[in-house]
Amino acid sequence: MRGKHSELIPRVRKGELALLDRIRSRVSRSPVGGLRLGIGDDCAILRLKASEELAVTTDLSIAGRHFRLEWHPPEAVGHRTLARGLSDIAAMGGRPLAAFLSLGLPRELAAQKGRRRPWIDGFLDGFLALADRYQTPLAGGDLAESPMAAADIVLLGAVPRGKALLRSGARPGDAVWVTGALGGAAAGLELLSQGRSRAVSTNSEKMGDLLAPHLWPQPRIVQGLWLLRRQAATAAIDLSDGLSTDLDHVCTESGVAAEIDAGALPIYATATLNQALHGGEDYELLFTARPNTAIPRSISGIAVTKIGRIVKRRVGQPRVVLMDTSGSRPLRPAGWEHFS
Amino acid sequence: MRGKHSELIPRVRKGELALLDRIRSRVSRSPVGGLRLGIGDDCAILRLKASEELAVTTDLSIAGRHFRLEWHPPEAVGHRTLARGLSDIAAMGGRPLAAFLSLGLPRELAAQKGRRRPWIDGFLDGFLALADRYQTPLAGGDLAESPMAAADIVLLGAVPRGKALLRSGARPGDAVWVTGALGGAAAGLELLSQGRSRAVSTNSEKMGDLLAPHLWPQPRIVQGLWLLRRQAATAAIDLSDGLSTDLDHVCTESGVAAEIDAGALPIYATATLNQALHGGEDYELLFTARPNTAIPRSISGIAVTKIGRIVKRRVGQPRVVLMDTSGSRPLRPAGWEHFS
Repeated sequence: MRGKHSELIPRVRKGELALLDRIRSRVSRSPVGGLRLGIGDDCAILRLKASEELAVTTDLSIAGRHFRLEWHPPEAVGHRTLARGLSDIAAMGGRPLAAFLSLGLPRELAAQKGRRRPWIDGFLDGFLALADRYQTPLAGGDLAESPMAAADIVLLGAVPRGKALLRSGARPGDAVWVTGALGGAAAGLELLSQGRSRAVSTNSEKMGDLLAPHLWPQPRIVQGLWLLRRQAATAAIDLSDGLSTDLDHVCTESGVAAEIDAGALPIYATATLNQALHGGEDYELLFTARPNTAIPRSISGIAVTKIGRIVKRRVGQPRVVLMDTSGSRPLRPAGWEHFS
Repeated sequence: MRGKHSELIPRVRKGELALLDRIRSRVSRSPVGGLRLGIGDDCAILRLKASEELAVTTDLSIAGRHFRLEWHPPEAVGHRTLARGLSDIAAMGGRPLAAFLSLGLPRELAAQKGRRRPWIDGFLDGFLALADRYQTPLAGGDLAESPMAAADIVLLGAVPRGKALLRSGARPGDAVWVTGALGGAAAGLELLSQGRSRAVSTNSEKMGDLLAPHLWPQPRIVQGLWLLRRQAATAAIDLSDGLSTDLDHVCTESGVAAEIDAGALPIYATATLNQALHGGEDYELLFTARPNTAIPRSISGIAVTKIGRIVKRRVGQPRVVLMDTSGSRPLRPAGWEHFS
């Protein structure tokens, strides 16, 4: 039972209700795009076009593991939470339909502290600004008091039936491409972890540039839509776990192997080769394309770079190798694994 | 960055990968119903019939708040996690399509302890048994190490376009109905909280009966589908927060008021009136119907009981009143509020 006869679940407090009201007041309840019914009933209701199917992803972020309250401004935590979900939709070539957010929050993050705005308000600022940019209404979710902050983001997207970009479509002979630059998020996190305070990170313009790929990653929704519409990609994945891990996923699902040219990698200005190879959280797209498919130098202002090729899988050989002027070596997954 | 150059996010351990493999091995990857693509890509892909729209709900459960590891068997935590989501789909008259589960777990719940099976295996037993019963494939989710156990459940369901049962359709003159019996979950939790050990709760058959409504609530999917198909209900909600709170939601969303007959309430054998009114977590359906709509005594074996009526909302008057032989008194929401 919730509340009355037990200490298991204390009755909801006024502060929590006030927080709900604050969230609701910032979210439109009127239909937007495919969203027919948002917050306020047992379920949200969404509609697809008859020619579409639904892409669904969920990503769990936990304080101390995916972010640190003492390092990350609340706006960046909100932005990154949503960016993780949008990036998965981008990797399928999807059009975002709606987001759902489940938040577990310690009381002190939900409440006002003296004159400072509550942490949750900054979180919502970052979250909703990115949601606006991609016309992704916050259509529901859940809220609970929790000993530590946790945010589970659910993203729904629409893709034309049977046309989603999958991890499993790469074939020998395909070229391997990435959007943007790699390693910037890892380099930014390195800076944060070396003790640059949050105040510095947000106030100094130069420091802001160095931290931007980590704090404000940009989901490649537009580029994913472009690839799908042109049917330019045979496979795609977003670089959430690091090039070495995510390319390994593509090779495994496609039953192929890959060779990467170290010299061709678009390494972020402040990043190392290792950060570009294993860093993760860049949220760029990695995709494969037939060798004769014309890929422009950039898509909607974001550079696109050929970094290698898909080859046949050979038993006993590494799935991914890194080639440079001194020869080739296995590139083993050294990023992050999760359940999705 | 995830892993290599920072302590923020420790590299995934072998135990976590083994857990992922264990979950994956228990989940079908082949298409089921509307699910075209399950675990293994950036997103799952689902398809609706052209005549359908999508219902989406998320519910966050946190150890110490929604369940207690020392009271609740892991199978019951898994069952209840999924039941919460399925119940929201039932309240819309929806057909379950797929579930997504995000789990935050302390290491000791994921790992084997001596000869005992890991906690997570019991959780999955309970979760997947209920999922099977309602043909709801586990289509994805996320997993992370966490200082305390937390589970966010996402349920997707299909409803005929424009036909979903909403909270907002009740009209003056409608009768108010509930499925099943009320207060049993609260009575069961009371027993648990009075110190009956988990061993007793699961081993004694009689105690099992008393605890069943709390530990193993049954989502009323079949009854929701019946109401929708017959267009019998003008509004519906599931009793997750307690009759007093959930009926208040219906009245608020519909702009009406309600009178409840205390003598008509189907109170669970071991429950008190207060538990039936405010207990919550019974996961029965409350619905309203035009007074001339024929409602059978039971739907698929579950009793259906008329408990009151919808009346006009009058300024300054309580939204819900409880009537008994001594007169009437306001029935104020005394359950649970959440964000959805």
